[in-house]
Amino acid sequence: MNAEIIAVGTELLLGQTMDTHSATLSRVLPEYGIGVYFRQTVGDNLGRVTEAIRLALSRADLVICIGGLGPTEDDLTREAIAAALDDVLVHDEMIEERLRTMFALRNIPWTDRQANQAKRPSCATPIDNPNGSAPGLDCRKEGKIVLALPGPRGEFVPMVENQIRPRLASMETGSIIQSRILKICGMGESLVEESIRDLIQGANPTVGVYAHTGEVHLRLTAKAASSEAVMALLEPLDNAIRSRLGKSVFGKDNASLEGSVLEQLRSNKQTLAVAESCTGGWLGQKLTSVPGSSDVFVGGVISYTNAVKVSMLGVPESVLDAHGAVSNETVVHMAIGAKARLEADWALSISGVAGPGGGTDEKPVGLVYVGLVGPNITTSEEFKFRGVRDFIRERSVQAALTMLYRHLS
Amino acid sequence: MNAEIIAVGTELLLGQTMDTHSATLSRVLPEYGIGVYFRQTVGDNLGRVTEAIRLALSRADLVICIGGLGPTEDDLTREAIAAALDDVLVHDEMIEERLRTMFALRNIPWTDRQANQAKRPSCATPIDNPNGSAPGLDCRKEGKIVLALPGPRGEFVPMVENQIRPRLASMETGSIIQSRILKICGMGESLVEESIRDLIQGANPTVGVYAHTGEVHLRLTAKAASSEAVMALLEPLDNAIRSRLGKSVFGKDNASLEGSVLEQLRSNKQTLAVAESCTGGWLGQKLTSVPGSSDVFVGGVISYTNAVKVSMLGVPESVLDAHGAVSNETVVHMAIGAKARLEADWALSISGVAGPGGGTDEKPVGLVYVGLVGPNITTSEEFKFRGVRDFIRERSVQAALTMLYRHLS
Repeated sequence: MNAEIIAVGTELLLGQTMDTHSATLSRVLPEYGIGVYFRQTVGDNLGRVTEAIRLALSRADLVICIGGLGPTEDDLTREAIAAALDDVLVHDEMIEERLRTMFALRNIPWTDRQANQAKRPSCATPIDNPNGSAPGLDCRKEGKIVLALPGPRGEFVPMVENQIRPRLASMETGSIIQSRILKICGMGESLVEESIRDLIQGANPTVGVYAHTGEVHLRLTAKAASSEAVMALLEPLDNAIRSRLGKSVFGKDNASLEGSVLEQLRSNKQTLAVAESCTGGWLGQKLTSVPGSSDVFVGGVISYTNAVKVSMLGVPESVLDAHGAVSNETVVHMAIGAKARLEADWALSISGVAGPGGGTDEKPVGLVYVGLVGPNITTSEEFKFRGVRDFIRERSVQAALTMLYRHLS
Repeated sequence: MNAEIIAVGTELLLGQTMDTHSATLSRVLPEYGIGVYFRQTVGDNLGRVTEAIRLALSRADLVICIGGLGPTEDDLTREAIAAALDDVLVHDEMIEERLRTMFALRNIPWTDRQANQAKRPSCATPIDNPNGSAPGLDCRKEGKIVLALPGPRGEFVPMVENQIRPRLASMETGSIIQSRILKICGMGESLVEESIRDLIQGANPTVGVYAHTGEVHLRLTAKAASSEAVMALLEPLDNAIRSRLGKSVFGKDNASLEGSVLEQLRSNKQTLAVAESCTGGWLGQKLTSVPGSSDVFVGGVISYTNAVKVSMLGVPESVLDAHGAVSNETVVHMAIGAKARLEADWALSISGVAGPGGGTDEKPVGLVYVGLVGPNITTSEEFKFRGVRDFIRERSVQAALTMLYRHLS
């Protein structure tokens, strides 16, 4: 069974609102063995919404429309569904009754505009919406299903969980599609793909390779009759990839590199401090985004100026004079200072030229040093990143986490 | 002129990646008078990507594809464009030359897979991509234009700014739609809307009100025959809104609150330090995201544990014992310590309960204190935020910046 998702709303087409609902449905549908091959986004225009639904009906069994169910003139999804299904709109007394009761309770006057929300295609049954006014719609005609869901987040999310999931479960047609993501650090996309090329050619499971900032993600997807059968397809592939890539696989699914680093330090009963120059606190921000990080991460120093590197971290002025703030020597002293002064077992440090200004021939924009000092190690590494300021900074944070991850594992 | 946007990637259809790029383009295109009526999202499947491009070409003059330009087998956009335009793929020696040079510089071996990126439809000219390997493509055939942009954020964003905007400017036709955004801090969405309700009813210019984390943005949009005529519509409205909202309007368009704060400190020739607990470096990260921040922002201390608050900021243990780490008294001492030890004119400090754990009846999740110490001021403020951990942390950062902004202006 295939589904197609249509997000309705001019605010989406103008980029003023991010379409997170389509992504939510995209994650839910495969859990019921329902594939999604296309999504569409269309503005509040009757002709175009109708065209989008007609196209979707021509290539999918199930069409889910999001938005355009409210009381205003812009809310055209009811009419568009009726038109696309060659159906007519009828006035539903039961819906009106429910709306009138709700508005009376809230002291909202009843208007003709509100009465629009009591209309539905004749083939539709309303979907209860306890969190808003307009009900959802479940339209079924000639073997096709069109579901219409309200756009406001507080109405959409509970309707998907409480009303749509049971409907999808009843539509389930045999197979289940499940994915897992293996996350890799310290290897580029091409190198990962070459290392496992022979493992990722199959049709079931399939493997997708995706580059993220400083990471590569592999999506393993299998289709089978049961959850157990899906696992039986995914597990051997997962194991084969891990044995090929080794410790470069730092986690799966929702795992983060910072979470994996913290987890390893926690199991070692060790603590971590940071000293950041060009990243300005980003490394600390990332580490503390993990709930419960405080038993491992003690804190750090944002030493944005040389004066602070000297006063707060004890970097010798002679080192700064001889090698500059962006150098192997400086990041090592930054890490030594952070480890000693914050009394941590490990310290990571970062200094670089994030740009757009400040680059020289000798030290161009994108040149970054990461320092690492631990119980039995003092080291540093040089990186050359390309891109805009915040990309260079984010890559630097990832490089620092990768460096510590590798030393721990 | 109409454009249609096609986002390519199975990871989008599975909801694993949020499609922010389509929204970015949706905001850029209307600036050049180019309307967007449909967007499509399609997986990494040659037939379906081709179908999506054909459909888009049937109803738009300009089609922009995002993603699928990399070196892997999943990257099919080049072939799909060629198929949809009834064109053929050719091997481009110039692209190969550039790629080989780039890979040699980075010590990456040259493989057949990489050579895929040197292919292009015969009607295409490559679009320079200094931040990645695969170039973008500008394909023009029989009055239709298909642009293909790389998916990675660090490549996509600069290519849109530097390469796509000039191309769009050269396509401009007839009326121009332009927007500007006024950014407001320290006022809620409802209060902003009530204060200016009579000003925002018009049809041209229109005003949209959008709530962001800790900020409210007003989008003023006008349509006219020339840029001058658009300005003549926008300027009086802009002035009327500013005179109504006063200093709460901290900037417009790409202005950021952190940028406005840094700008005011710079004009005062004053410096700033931070001391962060629950935000773990986020405030520093935000301030240093602004290029050139180093002449104002000297650095800070991430004092995640009480021990670091004492050792690195000199917060008296008696204060921590009597009032706890999350208190007015502690944030004031954190700011005093940061100002003195980092020798800055101003210091901001943050301490709070970000959750999900760690809350008590007396100090629940979401309770946050911000401290501010400046040349003639020592103050603090209590906030109660609701939401998930990172939302509470981001609101805390915004609250700190808003507090300093208000004291400066």
